[in-house]
Amino acid sequence: MSKLKNDRFLRALLREPVDCTPVWMMRQAGRYLPEYRATRTKAGSFMDLCKNPDLACEVTLQPLDRYPLDAAILFSDILTIPDAMGLGLSFNEGEGPVFARPVRTAQEVERLGVPDPEQELRYVMDAVRVIRRELNGRVPLIGFSGSPWTLATYMVEGGSSKEYANIKKMMYDTPAVMHKLLAVVAQSVTTYLNAQVAAGAQALMIFDTWGGILTPRDYQRFSLNYMAQIVQGLTREADGRKVPVILFTKGGGAWLEAMAATGCDGLGLDWTINIGEARKRVGAKVALQGNMDPSVLYASPTRIREEVASILADYGQGNGHVFNLGHGIHQHVDPEHAGAFIAAVHELSRPYHK
Amino acid sequence: MSKLKNDRFLRALLREPVDCTPVWMMRQAGRYLPEYRATRTKAGSFMDLCKNPDLACEVTLQPLDRYPLDAAILFSDILTIPDAMGLGLSFNEGEGPVFARPVRTAQEVERLGVPDPEQELRYVMDAVRVIRRELNGRVPLIGFSGSPWTLATYMVEGGSSKEYANIKKMMYDTPAVMHKLLAVVAQSVTTYLNAQVAAGAQALMIFDTWGGILTPRDYQRFSLNYMAQIVQGLTREADGRKVPVILFTKGGGAWLEAMAATGCDGLGLDWTINIGEARKRVGAKVALQGNMDPSVLYASPTRIREEVASILADYGQGNGHVFNLGHGIHQHVDPEHAGAFIAAVHELSRPYHK
Repeated sequence: MSKLKNDRFLRALLREPVDCTPVWMMRQAGRYLPEYRATRTKAGSFMDLCKNPDLACEVTLQPLDRYPLDAAILFSDILTIPDAMGLGLSFNEGEGPVFARPVRTAQEVERLGVPDPEQELRYVMDAVRVIRRELNGRVPLIGFSGSPWTLATYMVEGGSSKEYANIKKMMYDTPAVMHKLLAVVAQSVTTYLNAQVAAGAQALMIFDTWGGILTPRDYQRFSLNYMAQIVQGLTREADGRKVPVILFTKGGGAWLEAMAATGCDGLGLDWTINIGEARKRVGAKVALQGNMDPSVLYASPTRIREEVASILADYGQGNGHVFNLGHGIHQHVDPEHAGAFIAAVHELSRPYHK
Repeated sequence: MSKLKNDRFLRALLREPVDCTPVWMMRQAGRYLPEYRATRTKAGSFMDLCKNPDLACEVTLQPLDRYPLDAAILFSDILTIPDAMGLGLSFNEGEGPVFARPVRTAQEVERLGVPDPEQELRYVMDAVRVIRRELNGRVPLIGFSGSPWTLATYMVEGGSSKEYANIKKMMYDTPAVMHKLLAVVAQSVTTYLNAQVAAGAQALMIFDTWGGILTPRDYQRFSLNYMAQIVQGLTREADGRKVPVILFTKGGGAWLEAMAATGCDGLGLDWTINIGEARKRVGAKVALQGNMDPSVLYASPTRIREEVASILADYGQGNGHVFNLGHGIHQHVDPEHAGAFIAAVHELSRPYHK
């Protein structure tokens, strides 16, 4: 493997000194880019694109060719694991993911097995290998997975949900069944992320999109508990370096201390918390990634710069900050605004690293 | 006006002693009740129901006839004010509210006026008067409004939204226009709530459903600031009693101290915060209303009792707690489960008031 030319992102996650604050964007390979839409059309369905390693590599690299980003993130979907478990994933245009065979009973949970990443999920591992080769050391590659709780919400509901009636009923009425489901998913995520590291991923991120719909007690029991198991089960070194892992619970600002105690290296923050406050609470233990409201990118480049400046000032002097949006970039954002955002982070952050 | 027979709810909001913890449910007059669905069919559209004071009274009283609830809440919609401003509200089945004429430019904001509650919103005031008469002092009647920020999201987006692209663009790019819009809405809400009190409302609640999509700084500037103006502008006495006001920001658990500082009497809590922690932070200043996850009502009555017991224990001994769900009751809940919930609150809370 070629030597890494830009290691700002990895250094910041390990709270080592950097020349400026590294930046990447959640969902940076996405529909706001015309070149992404062109590849997507060529590929066919969204899952066709995910399952074609060469095209997945192509879209992974597109934002890096356009912007001086400090990290690449594997182009894939969070629902590959349940799909590999046999639930039958498809995407209905405009309606999001749908599982043909949702999991709702103890019997259906019993039948679930841990997928072999180099068999049922080989297309993901191949994508990691192709991307690492094509990146050729420009920036590190982030591998990722959904959190067990988040994956379980889709598996039990059969798709996106507003009320989470089925999974909440399972959790409140039959917690043993809920725990059994989460355990097999957590084991699958651990195996999957370790395989991504073996294939070349240089950092990992766990997306807990729906942990924020739980009470504090249930968040600990049903979401964080399983993310902690995964963090403990990860291969933490590759290519002679530490492989940092980032946890991100959307709406999890109240629980940062507990999240940091899992042993992860970084926490992703959404924009509903001030990053300076978050740093005071947990900045001695973990790096922080975030946290500009993605909707700021709808505003003018001047306004975008102001918001970047404000977040940099809130974080303050020193190490341990990876700049990002607080959630994925929206599809109707002007690509030039994304460019203004990235340039502003690099330029305005230098004084904070002197 | 007849004397109040059950004043537990008002006493708890003013942090006075009660015999047991009062309870009501957000959206208690709603689709989970077959009798509501029957009246709704009779009325025609949802807005037809809201605009017919006799039918609005009928559905307001339905849950009280079924359960020993400690408060009634006016049956209405949060979007009556923008409708009265001329935006043309309708409800598309399954898609939520739609405004025919959204407000997006400085010119469109300039044109907005403060509706006269006894003219354009007379149907609401008539409903309050009819309900007060028909309640005949059984329990107090809660009047309500959406918060200025929450109303503005619908007014600018033209309906429900996922990304809030239009209002965020207005807020970030042209904050002066945003403030002008919020000011006229805040003035309208103040006038509207004062008219509800004059018509007979005995407590008030302001629903800030979408304050939680803001950064902490913008929450203060664009949502809380206007709720504070409203609290300051309210008539605080009627029938020789204080009219308590409750603020509820969904996802606002991080901002309770600032909310309590507005001078309101109670804070509504969603279920993502522990009510015991909330009490430690602000319980010396305000009462707390909440906060069971509405999805617990999908579970068995035994499990519902356990969750009620756990929240009562978290709040602990003494005054200042109004039990409620952390959000509106879901439409597919079994009405018997709602009954088990209400009975459990009354029964299990007595030891905490000795």
